[in-house]
Amino acid sequence: MSEEITLSLKDAESLSLNVLQHNGYNQAHAEAITRNVLTVQRDECHSHGLYRLIGCVQTALNGGVDTHAVPEVIDQAPSVVKVNARQGNSLLAFEMGKEQLVEKARQTGLAALAINNAFHFSALWPEVEALSSEGLIGIAMTPSHAFVAPAGGTKPLLGTNPIAFSWPRPGSAPYTFDFATSVVARGEIELYKRAGKQIPTGWAIDAQGEATTSPVDALAGAMLTFGGYKGSALSTMIELLAGPLIGDVLGHETQPANEQKTGKPFHGELIIAISPDVFLGQDAARHLQHAEVLFENILGQGARLPSQRRFEARENSLRNGITLPKALYNELIALTH
Amino acid sequence: MSEEITLSLKDAESLSLNVLQHNGYNQAHAEAITRNVLTVQRDECHSHGLYRLIGCVQTALNGGVDTHAVPEVIDQAPSVVKVNARQGNSLLAFEMGKEQLVEKARQTGLAALAINNAFHFSALWPEVEALSSEGLIGIAMTPSHAFVAPAGGTKPLLGTNPIAFSWPRPGSAPYTFDFATSVVARGEIELYKRAGKQIPTGWAIDAQGEATTSPVDALAGAMLTFGGYKGSALSTMIELLAGPLIGDVLGHETQPANEQKTGKPFHGELIIAISPDVFLGQDAARHLQHAEVLFENILGQGARLPSQRRFEARENSLRNGITLPKALYNELIALTH
Repeated sequence: MSEEITLSLKDAESLSLNVLQHNGYNQAHAEAITRNVLTVQRDECHSHGLYRLIGCVQTALNGGVDTHAVPEVIDQAPSVVKVNARQGNSLLAFEMGKEQLVEKARQTGLAALAINNAFHFSALWPEVEALSSEGLIGIAMTPSHAFVAPAGGTKPLLGTNPIAFSWPRPGSAPYTFDFATSVVARGEIELYKRAGKQIPTGWAIDAQGEATTSPVDALAGAMLTFGGYKGSALSTMIELLAGPLIGDVLGHETQPANEQKTGKPFHGELIIAISPDVFLGQDAARHLQHAEVLFENILGQGARLPSQRRFEARENSLRNGITLPKALYNELIALTH
Repeated sequence: MSEEITLSLKDAESLSLNVLQHNGYNQAHAEAITRNVLTVQRDECHSHGLYRLIGCVQTALNGGVDTHAVPEVIDQAPSVVKVNARQGNSLLAFEMGKEQLVEKARQTGLAALAINNAFHFSALWPEVEALSSEGLIGIAMTPSHAFVAPAGGTKPLLGTNPIAFSWPRPGSAPYTFDFATSVVARGEIELYKRAGKQIPTGWAIDAQGEATTSPVDALAGAMLTFGGYKGSALSTMIELLAGPLIGDVLGHETQPANEQKTGKPFHGELIIAISPDVFLGQDAARHLQHAEVLFENILGQGARLPSQRRFEARENSLRNGITLPKALYNELIALTH
């Protein structure tokens, strides 16, 4: 185990704001990003927590994000709100569109928030949980840079295209999942490469489109979707809904920001909110309670709910503060001066 | 190959109507069911085509469906229409709710049709394709009888919980998928049993919750979801959205109609329609055209689109008529007198 450090939520917040503002982000963006990465770090999802500040800074240095962009909120239709992120980070755009999304869902039953032209680096679950904490069901999806081959294909085309879902549970943490439609995250393959280990079969293909267990060949080839042709179909659906439906690009049309400034890191995101109160009227509480039977039966046979470990970590962080590797802490401190 | 017979679309339609009306279905239900199974048979999806008429008749004989039920359409909210199928078949309920669903999606951007208290036996893709043929995006899901264990669990709890999606393509057949969230259909395991063959590992567990390759033990145990914990999470989402959200039951609360009339075959279905025209305004045509780049790139690397084989069969059936096994034809004829 590497050495760790524990910070109070307040100190971790100051650190994050300092890192972002020292590297060009205006206050509004710095605060929105900080709220997200702190929420994620609190739940001990290290891959999408404070660690991501390094990428936010690097992207800004590479010119891949407008650190002062002012998102434009557009009231598109009774159930549709759009936010043009104007090449800024997606998180401020989400926060600015959320109020209308919630209002529309409560009026019409379900509504969509489309975010366009955004730099996106974050876990989706904080956004769907922002909806379930308001008593709504949240679904979010976004394409990403094209690292994944479609089922039966040989080349990268689809993004890792994550989908997240959160269902409000009376009196307890919500039922939430958030996963990439690739078998694993790209970072997982990079860890195998660093450790000099072979990856399991079924994760990736090489540049010739052949199955491979070499992480090096996998990174030069393409990752595969989870669940074969079914996962590939879902990934395609995500790319269509969070791409052309909202007037934004496809995964293969984006690429990470780079030092040559030829990257095109901007793409779309789609968030759907559904109101059980509108669907069910005065029966809503009874049916939400009835959904608990499903969760009880899952737990009752020894299976786990998707975010259980995360909610346990949350309890711990709220009591004892936020834990991060000492090396990461030092790296973040270095970014503040 | 078993012997086959080819019927004109008109003769196949008469046969289906005769089977259903001779066995108690009123004209409205017989016509709605016939439109569905003929559409499916035309595309040579034999498992959900005319073969399903036998089950429709058996369910009626077992008292598991009201063959004269008059669905009630409820205008729930600006983006929500509900249809109470009143223990009749789901297909007439869908047809009666579809007009309001389409209208609402065109007004608000996206809308939902919730069908309650329905006997459901049919493929979902004809319903989502009924929406994409109107220029809308369709998503449909339904729970089913509990044959599937959650990831990490040991017992049947979830339905095979299918999800279908259809995206309108300018000038060609839509992009459509429709799949169960179980690894395979239950009928597939029954085929292995009949052939005396072992099933692949990963399809099912036995009654003790242990992995099995015996189709007999699998049928007495539980099927598994596709894609491990990710598929299990999706299946849970489907069960929540097409169950408690619409005020209907969970998969484990249903069971097939049986001779003892203790079955509870009624459950819900959720269909979502999304209007690209509302999301995109005058840019809709351009972005729908842009989505074609994704399909071209999938096909260009030698992969196939989900329903390609079906659309090829459709062309063939429209030219040459509908093909079905002679044995099935004889069985259907026997049900008409």
